[in-house]
Amino acid sequence: MTERTLLFLENKDYRGLREFLCEINPADIALILSEIPEESLTLVFRLLPKEIAAETFVEMDGDEQEFLLKAFSDKEIRDVLDELYVDDTVDIIEEMPANVVRRILALADSEMRAQINEILHYPKNSAGSIMTTEFVDLKKDMTVAAAFERIRRVGVDKETIYTCYVIDENRHLLGLISVKTLLLSSMRSIIGDIMETNIISVSTLQDREAVGDDFVKYGFLAMPVVDNENRLVGIVTIDDAIDVIQEENTEDIEKMAAITPTDKTYMKTGIIETWIKRIPWLLLLMISAAFTGKIITVFEDALAAQIALTAFIPMLMDSGGNAGSQASVSIIRGLALNEIEYKNIFAIWRKEFVVSILCGITLAAANFVKILIIDRVSITVAAVVCVTLFATIIIAKLVGCTLPILAKRIGFDPAVMASPFITTIVDALSLLVYFNIASALLGI
Amino acid sequence: MTERTLLFLENKDYRGLREFLCEINPADIALILSEIPEESLTLVFRLLPKEIAAETFVEMDGDEQEFLLKAFSDKEIRDVLDELYVDDTVDIIEEMPANVVRRILALADSEMRAQINEILHYPKNSAGSIMTTEFVDLKKDMTVAAAFERIRRVGVDKETIYTCYVIDENRHLLGLISVKTLLLSSMRSIIGDIMETNIISVSTLQDREAVGDDFVKYGFLAMPVVDNENRLVGIVTIDDAIDVIQEENTEDIEKMAAITPTDKTYMKTGIIETWIKRIPWLLLLMISAAFTGKIITVFEDALAAQIALTAFIPMLMDSGGNAGSQASVSIIRGLALNEIEYKNIFAIWRKEFVVSILCGITLAAANFVKILIIDRVSITVAAVVCVTLFATIIIAKLVGCTLPILAKRIGFDPAVMASPFITTIVDALSLLVYFNIASALLGI
Repeated sequence: MTERTLLFLENKDYRGLREFLCEINPADIALILSEIPEESLTLVFRLLPKEIAAETFVEMDGDEQEFLLKAFSDKEIRDVLDELYVDDTVDIIEEMPANVVRRILALADSEMRAQINEILHYPKNSAGSIMTTEFVDLKKDMTVAAAFERIRRVGVDKETIYTCYVIDENRHLLGLISVKTLLLSSMRSIIGDIMETNIISVSTLQDREAVGDDFVKYGFLAMPVVDNENRLVGIVTIDDAIDVIQEENTEDIEKMAAITPTDKTYMKTGIIETWIKRIPWLLLLMISAAFTGKIITVFEDALAAQIALTAFIPMLMDSGGNAGSQASVSIIRGLALNEIEYKNIFAIWRKEFVVSILCGITLAAANFVKILIIDRVSITVAAVVCVTLFATIIIAKLVGCTLPILAKRIGFDPAVMASPFITTIVDALSLLVYFNIASALLGI
Repeated sequence: MTERTLLFLENKDYRGLREFLCEINPADIALILSEIPEESLTLVFRLLPKEIAAETFVEMDGDEQEFLLKAFSDKEIRDVLDELYVDDTVDIIEEMPANVVRRILALADSEMRAQINEILHYPKNSAGSIMTTEFVDLKKDMTVAAAFERIRRVGVDKETIYTCYVIDENRHLLGLISVKTLLLSSMRSIIGDIMETNIISVSTLQDREAVGDDFVKYGFLAMPVVDNENRLVGIVTIDDAIDVIQEENTEDIEKMAAITPTDKTYMKTGIIETWIKRIPWLLLLMISAAFTGKIITVFEDALAAQIALTAFIPMLMDSGGNAGSQASVSIIRGLALNEIEYKNIFAIWRKEFVVSILCGITLAAANFVKILIIDRVSITVAAVVCVTLFATIIIAKLVGCTLPILAKRIGFDPAVMASPFITTIVDALSLLVYFNIASALLGI
């Protein structure tokens, strides 16, 4: 699609380009805009009809939004702001430098400014920070006909109209009602009689991760956000919940790979920032690995006497690390999806113990055959390696499944207890086992 | 909540229990049912009003659904089936043993049976397998008033009414219209004039992962599924898309930890199945690690001459593995979120190269100081270790960022190119570097 856009631009066929762009989804227009040269950006954007322009703007990257905002006249900024939902405006503001933010706030009307400031003051990662203050509210003594009238009057500016919220004069949340229920009810029914009163809501300060979990669990399209006196202050819509779910997944995956998470995508993260996200963990893990080195130093004489033992160290370390990450990552994911709780720890130990015995036997047997056929070392050395391998797998699986649960229990993030940490711990333990068994069996 | 349920049961206060359960969300009732003793399951379930019973049934685990279905009379099964959406029925059927499936199909009415069979015949993981055939269809010459009349008549059985699909007499998809647009339009408007005709649809055989990606990208509530003649056969709703997104995330995470993915949760996966999911990868990686052992064997004499070198092997292997997984996991996630494409490979190499130099210098410097102060080996050995560490980090980051992109390019799953594989490759490379530098600098 980008090629076609560039062709239109080359031929200066702006009318054709406008028609072409109006046919495609704003998310795809944003993709095209990210791929054309920056000097054409403002020109192409100005071709878009007002409503599509605003929808496209929301989908663009921060850099390009900033570029456009700086090129825009006050009137153009106001036109875009008029079409935006308030939560999208807040998302944009959060990525802009201070001078652009000041200009946006100055150009917003006073009602929007108040709403923006309200959302901005909630802590990062709270439900309040991802909610929108634009929703349809109804009164409980309205008829269905009156409700539809209200939806028709105010609905055009609301991010969703499909769930409406019933509040009293002090904005306390009394109930909710879907447009489906409204459509299937008689026009003369009273809202208070047909509304749903078993409401699941979140508080403004609740962690946004928990909000995402609730959407997955309950299958809502929107979720009300209340303050600590149960007054309705906003709603979280499912499109924002999906973004939260994906961001939380990315954060978990990054932590599992020993990276400090950021909000930015890989391509948008600078070199220094990438280094800062990675180096502390590498340093910490390198220092921890020194203990493993220490163990080797202690058994240096034994190793010198049986230098063949050294060749099996990488295989033992890697197998232990892999077996441990399999267990830890399974548990971390189960915890994140709320499928595993602390009380399951005994069932988990039992399962991992039996699985580790099965895995240990398989690996040790395969390895024994391979050592005798290929490596041609003495049977005793082969036995030392295989017994160690068996013990390593059991240790690795038990350490791997236990640490994430304990981390969660004491309030740490279990995702950190993934491959890198487990590997470092299991490395040290498996070498200890290795040298002790070697000393005992080989008499060194 | 489970404690309160058990208390009601103990006091045989079934009326109170029924009232208590009617106040809470079906997803939470399902949670309670999974925690009470199995002998009370049928009793408690029978207390629920028909509609809530069906909604709860959908949320339950396969084991408990099977238990209930076996305890149910034909009439009870029919009652539940009546209330279920067809895609939920298919999900349940897919988990049941053959005799239960036969009973369900025998009790379903002929229209539902036809729909179930249609969805069941699409391949696993295709859009067709996760769609529902229940949606609101409109004709393009209807007025808005007629459309509302149709929604009121058929809407109660449809999973979503908020997006309606406009089809011709041969079921070709002509357009779509949201209930929001309908509500904000005049009752006399003609559907054909106000419907959206730039439709994004998926084909029945499209991978469900791509469907999930489209929901994230476009923010839809539902997405039409068409056959290869553009005839509308079903829709995917956002609640099912979210489940797909979460399952695909879990699959990616499992692959990254060298586990073969399954559909089951950790707690529901049996011991043998867990072993089968894990052992092939452990075996494969163990055999690959043998190459690393081989490298040590080749340099055995050099090692025997300088046994101090052995103590640094774990630190070098671990640091290389960690640096490599940081790069590979960042790229794998970027690919999964469609933030990274093949054409970015040069930008990625440039970034990872500079970042790896920065990381390599930091780690080597920290390590040099630590070796001189703590390990008290010769400066030459310290130099060998630190130069190797520097080279290892660069190799690890470049291997780590390249393999996932290449895997995707040649049609493999990039998620497999995560820590375990990268670690195994980087281990071998870093030891080669280590021994060659050692031979050169130490003259062994």
